Amino acid sequence: MLLEKGDKLIFIGDSVTDCDRAKPEGEGLFQALGNGYVSIVDSFLQSTYPELGVRVVNKGISGNTVRDLKARWQEDIMSQEADWVSIMIGINDVWRQFDSPNIKEHHVYIEEYEETLRSLVKETQAVAKQIVLMTPFYIEQNASDLMRAKMDEYGAIVKKISEEEGTIFIDTQDAFLEVLDDLYAAALAWDRVHPNQTGHTILAKSFLNTIGFDWTKM
Amino acid sequence: MLLEKGDKLIFIGDSVTDCDRAKPEGEGLFQALGNGYVSIVDSFLQSTYPELGVRVVNKGISGNTVRDLKARWQEDIMSQEADWVSIMIGINDVWRQFDSPNIKEHHVYIEEYEETLRSLVKETQAVAKQIVLMTPFYIEQNASDLMRAKMDEYGAIVKKISEEEGTIFIDTQDAFLEVLDDLYAAALAWDRVHPNQTGHTILAKSFLNTIGFDWTKM
Amino acid sequence: MLLEKGDKLIFIGDSVTDCDRAKPEGEGLFQALGNGYVSIVDSFLQSTYPELGVRVVNKGISGNTVRDLKARWQEDIMSQEADWVSIMIGINDVWRQFDSPNIKEHHVYIEEYEETLRSLVKETQAVAKQIVLMTPFYIEQNASDLMRAKMDEYGAIVKKISEEEGTIFIDTQDAFLEVLDDLYAAALAWDRVHPNQTGHTILAKSFLNTIGFDWTKM
Amino acid sequence: MLLEKGDKLIFIGDSVTDCDRAKPEGEGLFQALGNGYVSIVDSFLQSTYPELGVRVVNKGISGNTVRDLKARWQEDIMSQEADWVSIMIGINDVWRQFDSPNIKEHHVYIEEYEETLRSLVKETQAVAKQIVLMTPFYIEQNASDLMRAKMDEYGAIVKKISEEEGTIFIDTQDAFLEVLDDLYAAALAWDRVHPNQTGHTILAKSFLNTIGFDWTKM
Amino acid sequence: MLLEKGDKLIFIGDSVTDCDRAKPEGEGLFQALGNGYVSIVDSFLQSTYPELGVRVVNKGISGNTVRDLKARWQEDIMSQEADWVSIMIGINDVWRQFDSPNIKEHHVYIEEYEETLRSLVKETQAVAKQIVLMTPFYIEQNASDLMRAKMDEYGAIVKKISEEEGTIFIDTQDAFLEVLDDLYAAALAWDRVHPNQTGHTILAKSFLNTIGFDWTKM
Amino acid sequence: MLLEKGDKLIFIGDSVTDCDRAKPEGEGLFQALGNGYVSIVDSFLQSTYPELGVRVVNKGISGNTVRDLKARWQEDIMSQEADWVSIMIGINDVWRQFDSPNIKEHHVYIEEYEETLRSLVKETQAVAKQIVLMTPFYIEQNASDLMRAKMDEYGAIVKKISEEEGTIFIDTQDAFLEVLDDLYAAALAWDRVHPNQTGHTILAKSFLNTIGFDWTKM
Amino acid sequence: MLLEKGDKLIFIGDSVTDCDRAKPEGEGLFQALGNGYVSIVDSFLQSTYPELGVRVVNKGISGNTVRDLKARWQEDIMSQEADWVSIMIGINDVWRQFDSPNIKEHHVYIEEYEETLRSLVKETQAVAKQIVLMTPFYIEQNASDLMRAKMDEYGAIVKKISEEEGTIFIDTQDAFLEVLDDLYAAALAWDRVHPNQTGHTILAKSFLNTIGFDWTKM
Amino acid sequence: MLLEKGDKLIFIGDSVTDCDRAKPEGEGLFQALGNGYVSIVDSFLQSTYPELGVRVVNKGISGNTVRDLKARWQEDIMSQEADWVSIMIGINDVWRQFDSPNIKEHHVYIEEYEETLRSLVKETQAVAKQIVLMTPFYIEQNASDLMRAKMDEYGAIVKKISEEEGTIFIDTQDAFLEVLDDLYAAALAWDRVHPNQTGHTILAKSFLNTIGFDWTKM
Repeated sequence: MLLEKGDKLIFIGDSVTDCDRAKPEGEGLFQALGNGYVSIVDSFLQSTYPELGVRVVNKGISGNTVRDLKARWQEDIMSQEADWVSIMIGINDVWRQFDSPNIKEHHVYIEEYEETLRSLVKETQAVAKQIVLMTPFYIEQNASDLMRAKMDEYGAIVKKISEEEGTIFIDTQDAFLEVLDDLYAAALAWDRVHPNQTGHTILAKSFLNTIGFDWTKM
Repeated sequence: MLLEKGDKLIFIGDSVTDCDRAKPEGEGLFQALGNGYVSIVDSFLQSTYPELGVRVVNKGISGNTVRDLKARWQEDIMSQEADWVSIMIGINDVWRQFDSPNIKEHHVYIEEYEETLRSLVKETQAVAKQIVLMTPFYIEQNASDLMRAKMDEYGAIVKKISEEEGTIFIDTQDAFLEVLDDLYAAALAWDRVHPNQTGHTILAKSFLNTIGFDWTKM
Repeated sequence: MLLEKGDKLIFIGDSVTDCDRAKPEGEGLFQALGNGYVSIVDSFLQSTYPELGVRVVNKGISGNTVRDLKARWQEDIMSQEADWVSIMIGINDVWRQFDSPNIKEHHVYIEEYEETLRSLVKETQAVAKQIVLMTPFYIEQNASDLMRAKMDEYGAIVKKISEEEGTIFIDTQDAFLEVLDDLYAAALAWDRVHPNQTGHTILAKSFLNTIGFDWTKM
Repeated sequence: MLLEKGDKLIFIGDSVTDCDRAKPEGEGLFQALGNGYVSIVDSFLQSTYPELGVRVVNKGISGNTVRDLKARWQEDIMSQEADWVSIMIGINDVWRQFDSPNIKEHHVYIEEYEETLRSLVKETQAVAKQIVLMTPFYIEQNASDLMRAKMDEYGAIVKKISEEEGTIFIDTQDAFLEVLDDLYAAALAWDRVHPNQTGHTILAKSFLNTIGFDWTKM
Repeated sequence: MLLEKGDKLIFIGDSVTDCDRAKPEGEGLFQALGNGYVSIVDSFLQSTYPELGVRVVNKGISGNTVRDLKARWQEDIMSQEADWVSIMIGINDVWRQFDSPNIKEHHVYIEEYEETLRSLVKETQAVAKQIVLMTPFYIEQNASDLMRAKMDEYGAIVKKISEEEGTIFIDTQDAFLEVLDDLYAAALAWDRVHPNQTGHTILAKSFLNTIGFDWTKM
Repeated sequence: MLLEKGDKLIFIGDSVTDCDRAKPEGEGLFQALGNGYVSIVDSFLQSTYPELGVRVVNKGISGNTVRDLKARWQEDIMSQEADWVSIMIGINDVWRQFDSPNIKEHHVYIEEYEETLRSLVKETQAVAKQIVLMTPFYIEQNASDLMRAKMDEYGAIVKKISEEEGTIFIDTQDAFLEVLDDLYAAALAWDRVHPNQTGHTILAKSFLNTIGFDWTKM
Repeated sequence: MLLEKGDKLIFIGDSVTDCDRAKPEGEGLFQALGNGYVSIVDSFLQSTYPELGVRVVNKGISGNTVRDLKARWQEDIMSQEADWVSIMIGINDVWRQFDSPNIKEHHVYIEEYEETLRSLVKETQAVAKQIVLMTPFYIEQNASDLMRAKMDEYGAIVKKISEEEGTIFIDTQDAFLEVLDDLYAAALAWDRVHPNQTGHTILAKSFLNTIGFDWTKM
Repeated sequence: MLLEKGDKLIFIGDSVTDCDRAKPEGEGLFQALGNGYVSIVDSFLQSTYPELGVRVVNKGISGNTVRDLKARWQEDIMSQEADWVSIMIGINDVWRQFDSPNIKEHHVYIEEYEETLRSLVKETQAVAKQIVLMTPFYIEQNASDLMRAKMDEYGAIVKKISEEEGTIFIDTQDAFLEVLDDLYAAALAWDRVHPNQTGHTILAKSFLNTIGFDWTKM
């Protein structure tokens, strides 16, 4: 188990992370962490490792691209004294190229994506002891689907940055693909992007498995 | 893993089971299973055993006592062709004796509780292949607290019926007590009854562990 | 132009037809026809052929399958003295098999679909002078996508019934596919089912073109 | 077809243009263009010429007169890098003279109207390659009706400016009059100003016909 | 002053009478009479003739035609023990012919109108001592406007019935026309049907003048 | 009739004047004048003297005392170019002394009342050609009631200022007293302060009679 | 202290009793007793005599007269197994005569009031061991006020019945009058009928004092 | 009775004091004092000592700790010209340590609590003639419960400061404990913190008894 006593773990990202979290502070009582994978991760940490007192914070904001993260990085990450920062970004960077092809200023192309994400990771390494990079995903089994293929490219960038910068890496696309052998995409998300509880559980399990969560501990 | 391909598993109980489920049918898309332990159990089953196609249904109704369950048992259980029925009832049977001591017709005392629950179990054995009995609970560490002590008596009845009738048994009170060594009750439920996500995760883990869920399966 | 002076044209179907129409009567002032293809068809008919006085009625209900249509056919079609009946049904018949695979009583398999739709068409021929059969659709370019492939099978049934019963036929799947060469599916419908205004316009154009609407008439 | 690949087309005007568009940005997903003629124009462009990728923006604001347009012209038009600007203004300039005769500062008389509209057109010619001037209208068949007569005067000003400045011109009053031979005004708009879907379709058809839209292209 | 001590005066009609009155009983405290001419008549009667104790009741229902009045005449008039009954009906009978020309079952043509209204008047004479017939109106100055001309025909029927049956008669169309010399129709009602407070005051003044209200009494 | 063509008449006061008027501008369409005596005055002026084009504005604000009027006098009166200003203030100045006896900073005692009201009148005489002073009132028949007696003192101040400054004067208390011989206070206002429509009509009649309104003019 | 261990005490009456109580059952958690004197009585009983376990129920319904009580007496009193019944009725019986003088069927005159109330009391004596009769009241100091005088007559009837039938009697009018020496009526109730918290406390104190509540017991 | 004629008494604290009071000013009509012990204290003062004209103000704000009080002390207490200040604070200071153990910046530990509260008391002594210190409480009978034990420590600090600074002291914990012999905690507050009306009455009685309220005065 990589998390240590008293660690503060911040999740940042888009609507998949946000999931109707409390604002401005995504932490505390009354379902403040939202109802997605962040809340599932937190509740398994608290119920299984209550003695660690890990502090989980949700800084997701719906609709965000990596460009939006950059704009709020100083306030939402650098000044927060986090021990861990987990980043999952890129879905909107890609999606807008496909659902709003004419509004080009809403697109974040791959060069900007890579450069921005890398700079955020480098900046964060100065203040956090662990960074987790989760790929963006598209819950679509067909690898030659245009948007799936594009999302895979962005995912590959995440993997590359993770390897070069030495962060923890989670391939969320792979996690979904395993389940898609048995369940059609629409059973996880009508729009292939916003997962239902089963989809969020897939994300949470990937996260917990990656950080060495001991499922047999009670 | 005790659940088999195509099994239909119904959860029935009070507000802890209900958790704002869809009505009249607590099954299907759009978070119809509510946001409590039933939904967590379902999402772990679907994400880990998608090939089983287990069908989870939530029949919890807030405020119910075992007397209320009896009144709707024919419609909500007997006619549903369930393979599994999981019952967690008794919190309100006890709570009303303590928060509304003067309204005695709202109290369900232990004799009626035992007799009713046993008859429901017996009746159900004719139609379901597995019955799970979960004890009621009170998230209070002090065993000599009056309401905790009373709840323990009702829990003991559940255990007794389970042994006599040969059902699966889950001691939810025990599951909470383990965590209470590290977390004060108010961190799980302000009112010691309605758990937050961490509390519901404790319930879901107990259920899944009991039925042989393989956490390492991915 | 096949529509004649004073004709009454009823559209019936699922949420794509419904589109928030007025209930119980989907006809009249104040956007009673909803905001989908039915309203577009009506407004082009009224603005271009005001002298015909065609009367358009919307009988779509969200979530309906052909089984639901059968249950309300007597009241919503047979007793309405319609001259034309346009039917687009089947999306939910298929979708539930993919997004809710475990709830099998919500699935309408192809045999029931064919039999029911054919009987409705036959029944209607006794009272209406024209029947229009529109295929169900799935806004997905990949023909080997499982749900797309299944939807194509249902569409083929519609075509077969249309030919055998001599009704007007509209291949909505084809209409969408033409546009998908230039626009990714998510630009028409995030969930590939509920079209935005562009998608509804594709449906309306198909309908109007099929019935001989003269676009150059002003 | 006058629109070219990648053109950005802004519509500006009053409530007839606004039609409950998204604010502050009247562009993008979720019916952001409102539910009037702008949305109809857009959906026909996207469905018929998807390869052009024309970008449609709605800048209408309910209640606006030409005086209001002037106040926001710099921000809403000049700084937007539009290729096309379509202007329909004047209904409120006239209407207030008739429904609020005593509140004279809300009236925009014809001299101010002409001077302001011309200056806006001139200013815009420096930045846009095409300007469309649509007349204001009043859905009233009686040409000697006082408000209709006044609206016609304002429409004549629009035509004059269009000719003098070389813009595209659309006579919306004429478009409505053709239909009024068969439909009484109240069938298009109870208040003779805010059209229903049929009325908005009349406006959209006028616009599309004027810019060379090919209705037979599929 | 024709009203006598203790008289009960019921107004019945359509939305112009209704004006958001309380339902089911349009009488009593808290603006139960609605906010139209009925309330104005009542408040002038109570403030000027408080010693008479006249009881005013509003039985208007929005959208009603004379056919609707007939259906509820027994309950809403005959069983109410009214001394006076004031009827203003016909606007919707005519309007639907113009705004919904295709939905012919919503039209009430002039033969049915005359026959129904006359029979209601005759029936009422058996139980009430005074009947007031107010013409329907259309706030449009142009007498050759199609809907105005039609409304005048219905108004003429009202006058004829009034003369033949010996009721009090109020020409509301005339009352509006006098003001239209100075105010354009839109200053009284955007849709020419639902008056603003000035329009309702015109109706109330007509009523009060007709029944001999003494404006100088204080 | 004292009002002249084109006159602008502003009413200012407390909740009796306000009556849910539009804010910030209490003038124009859609019942912007509220539903009290101001609206009644306006609708009688517009319906009887449409040729005068009198402009009525409501500047009442609920809860105001004369101290509040002073604070907004510059903005709401002096800068408005009014021809007539009608002031009815003082009810809250008195009422707070009786319903909130302990919160003394909310009381406006008679010296401050007189001084402030006189200074507002003097200031206004420089810009308006007519000032109307309406007394505050308390709908209570018993002259020795403590609050009624106090209100009478404030009314006497209004009369004194009116005489000294040469304004038009309206004794609203007298107007109510005449009706109270026949109607108990609760039939006009449960709280003796906020009149129902009959009470507002009493105020409007007093105003119109005072300015020479000709009730027989049609 | 007259109340005995386990007694069930029902309050019945009009809006002063109702005070937004829960419906259909005015008993239990979550402020089900409303926010008036019933709740104050209950909270003093529970906090001072918790060992008695007195059960308080609120059966007040806004707007009720004694005629309404009669209609629901069987269901709301006779079948409830109450030990004590406290009745406060009559305000609306009187009030309607003053605020709605023309709607005579809403008036309950003194003969009907006396006869009905007496019959209810007699009927109740068969099932309850104690009956409390509270007078209706009108928070008005002036004894010659018409409505106050009428209310006093009704109060005298209550006293007479109480004496003749041997019930407990509470003169609520007297209780208010004592305070009115220091506080003007509007400080207790703007409409002289619906008391604020201070007014409800006056009622609760009268009740508790009458039944022998020991304020020094802690 | 320690309160004197015209005294102004401010209550300040957390949600137990706040109880949905009006904001920004917690004083005046329309239940502005909220629905907790402050309102009960006020209504007993006004109904029993109306001649004193004591002015009660509620400055409670939900969620406040003593740290929050410090931040608003200047504005909410020092500048208010209070004669009496009653302070009940500390519940959240303790509770956050138990329900949110990981968010340590929300905890107010005992040293900061003591220092801050003492400085506020000292500061206030310069402006108020009486200070009342009410202990925080936890409605839990078990003295060895962790949170109850901690709350007792904070209560002891309050007592110490009270003795050292010479203020009036109220032990609210003791007041609740007396009732807990007969009523289980959940009958007063499900969460042991937010009392129902019975619990608030216990607080109000403690306050009134402490300041010499004469319950027999009527």
